[in-house]
Amino acid sequence: MTGLKESASLTWEWLEEIARCSQTADPDREGVTRLCASDEHRQANDKLRQWMLAAGMQVRMDNAANLIGRYPSAAPDAKTLIFGSHQDTVPNGGKYDGILGVIAPLALVHYFNQNQIAFPYHIDVIAFSDEEGTRFQSTLLGSKAISGTFEPAMLDAVDAQGTTMRQALEQFGCRPELISHDAYQPEEVLGFVELHIEQGPQLEQADLPVGVVSAITGIERHTLSIKGKAGHAGTVPMNMRQDALVGAAQVIHYFDQLCKGQDDLVGVVGKIENFPNGVNVIPQQTDITIELRSPNDASRLAARSTLLAKIAQIMADYDLGYEHQLIYQQAAVTCSESLSSMLAQATSAAGIEPMQLFSGAGHDGLAVTHLTDIAMLFMRCKNGVSHHPDEAITQADLLSALDVLQQFCLLLKGDSTRS
Amino acid sequence: MTGLKESASLTWEWLEEIARCSQTADPDREGVTRLCASDEHRQANDKLRQWMLAAGMQVRMDNAANLIGRYPSAAPDAKTLIFGSHQDTVPNGGKYDGILGVIAPLALVHYFNQNQIAFPYHIDVIAFSDEEGTRFQSTLLGSKAISGTFEPAMLDAVDAQGTTMRQALEQFGCRPELISHDAYQPEEVLGFVELHIEQGPQLEQADLPVGVVSAITGIERHTLSIKGKAGHAGTVPMNMRQDALVGAAQVIHYFDQLCKGQDDLVGVVGKIENFPNGVNVIPQQTDITIELRSPNDASRLAARSTLLAKIAQIMADYDLGYEHQLIYQQAAVTCSESLSSMLAQATSAAGIEPMQLFSGAGHDGLAVTHLTDIAMLFMRCKNGVSHHPDEAITQADLLSALDVLQQFCLLLKGDSTRS
Repeated sequence: MTGLKESASLTWEWLEEIARCSQTADPDREGVTRLCASDEHRQANDKLRQWMLAAGMQVRMDNAANLIGRYPSAAPDAKTLIFGSHQDTVPNGGKYDGILGVIAPLALVHYFNQNQIAFPYHIDVIAFSDEEGTRFQSTLLGSKAISGTFEPAMLDAVDAQGTTMRQALEQFGCRPELISHDAYQPEEVLGFVELHIEQGPQLEQADLPVGVVSAITGIERHTLSIKGKAGHAGTVPMNMRQDALVGAAQVIHYFDQLCKGQDDLVGVVGKIENFPNGVNVIPQQTDITIELRSPNDASRLAARSTLLAKIAQIMADYDLGYEHQLIYQQAAVTCSESLSSMLAQATSAAGIEPMQLFSGAGHDGLAVTHLTDIAMLFMRCKNGVSHHPDEAITQADLLSALDVLQQFCLLLKGDSTRS
Repeated sequence: MTGLKESASLTWEWLEEIARCSQTADPDREGVTRLCASDEHRQANDKLRQWMLAAGMQVRMDNAANLIGRYPSAAPDAKTLIFGSHQDTVPNGGKYDGILGVIAPLALVHYFNQNQIAFPYHIDVIAFSDEEGTRFQSTLLGSKAISGTFEPAMLDAVDAQGTTMRQALEQFGCRPELISHDAYQPEEVLGFVELHIEQGPQLEQADLPVGVVSAITGIERHTLSIKGKAGHAGTVPMNMRQDALVGAAQVIHYFDQLCKGQDDLVGVVGKIENFPNGVNVIPQQTDITIELRSPNDASRLAARSTLLAKIAQIMADYDLGYEHQLIYQQAAVTCSESLSSMLAQATSAAGIEPMQLFSGAGHDGLAVTHLTDIAMLFMRCKNGVSHHPDEAITQADLLSALDVLQQFCLLLKGDSTRS
């Protein structure tokens, strides 16, 4: 019997191999750049297809360029357990964000197949075409397609070269007008499980290889444009200034304090643009973005109210005008209690203390929750780094993750046999 | 006898006419753009030359492209009183900053000539070729040349098209290698007087047309590069962040408070650059400029020490690294007590309450102080606006300024007759 340890080695090898399907020459130094419907995506899908076939899977690509391998069940009326994550990366991203959640389940299926372990449900492994939205600035393409929430207007999004998503998918061999037909039906699916690197430091701090995700954070993004009055930096007396950047500094400081004061909030002012941005000109206009996240929607909404009231007060204090816009809002998604508790059991069965944590990043589950119950397993990553060539994991942690997923499949088998 | 009122009208007409020597099509709406050694500079000099000749002046251009008109004295061994300011502008500047200090004395000389008023000293009116430094990013070209402090290395400065200052001056008909020979000798000069719009709101607030400048501000400029750590804006816990922009915000706020707390300081953070400047990335590096001004060098140096100590503390508090550089430093220049007190007397003689104020902006006097005593007369400008198409003055204020300058010349005449 081929062991899980071999599967962990196989996962490692495959991860290394697929990292070379990248625009970059040296993935170890420059990271991985693999965009949706690109040549590199095609190379990656070719490899995945070959590995899926070798694992006894049936393979198809849908019209959103998702590659789907099925380890079929012999059971009549079998439902489907879906594993999956995204194949695409941010520019110069790491070797694990996304693709780990494709390759590891695939190696697990390879192990099941080698050992003739059968299930009363199909196991589908999906490599979603696009989650990061790097190419078309429009996220979750793949997972929206399988969940039936894909909006055809997304097809008009253009990349930096002016190619539309529609054209790119057609050149990739898809028929984008048929995407809506590719959605799974809720009644045929048991659930969706995604393995992903944590992208944060909590598992490392707790000295644990994996953890079960309780919820995916809610996110809101704002733009704040602060309007002051330009003037000569030497001749306008201090008490007559309307300095937009000074107002922005107060907002940035306050918002940081607000988020630091409450456990379930994180927030950042990531972007700032200042006009005219001259060394000797009083800033006339300063534009910032504000991003606020919480796994608890009520906390997030309360923090937003507090912040907006404070902004109004700061602007009045500094005699500044402002325009505020809420430009993005995504409610938090709670993971399925039953699937998550089964993941926790599986963790215990693998000899690991189950730890619960929430995801501060968005994931494909945000879309798939519209189709079926979702669960996520986080795997420890070095220094919590992601979206960077320095992303790193260990083979030992891979083995733990595979063990948990294996135990989960067995538990679900028992569960579905009982039911 | 032609009156001063006619001179004020003439000044107004000439200011309107020379404003059309501009890269812009409509100076009223787009302001004036007139750079050193440009076609527009040549057009302006042609007009000035014609007006100088009509005012009974001898005219020459020196090798730094300064246009110099002399209203000669018949006295043996006459010394020279120099009036002047710069002909160049910032991009889309106003109709008065600089050129007012050329045109108004010229109209005054025209009045002296029409009325056959003679002086025991020569009166030179200089249109400095470049003070703003717009074209070559290198200020005070003209006034450094007449003061003997011009550094030949400045000739290698290049404009946006790659033309060196040397080439531009040669094309303009100058021999830049001879600039050092163009300096006045200290013993031949009585002093330098510049009329300039205030560029601030103090005269307007005091309801006065003119004021006497006590000192030209000292200026220092710093760059501060704050080094944090980039990270995913959702997954790095708040207490583990090293957010460079949050540190910058603290510095901006503190510096604003510092300058507001002391009458003789003004300061601004005019420029900010943030990296990677993504809506969902913790800022890794934030670069700001800090500019501090004071007419009192001791105050400025003390404020600098206080600020640098506070920066060190903020950076330590927020676990940030930083690099600091003092990139520019210009000591304050005190105006001549005797010339300034004569300007104040002249103000009283013109029926105006003399008010003293300091200049928060730099001026040609910063260079000319190395040659001779300097004095400045500020004229009220609407809303304190300068470097902008909205720059505005009134004919009534022009008349007041001409009257003060006339009284000054007469007082100096008495003074030099006595001595």
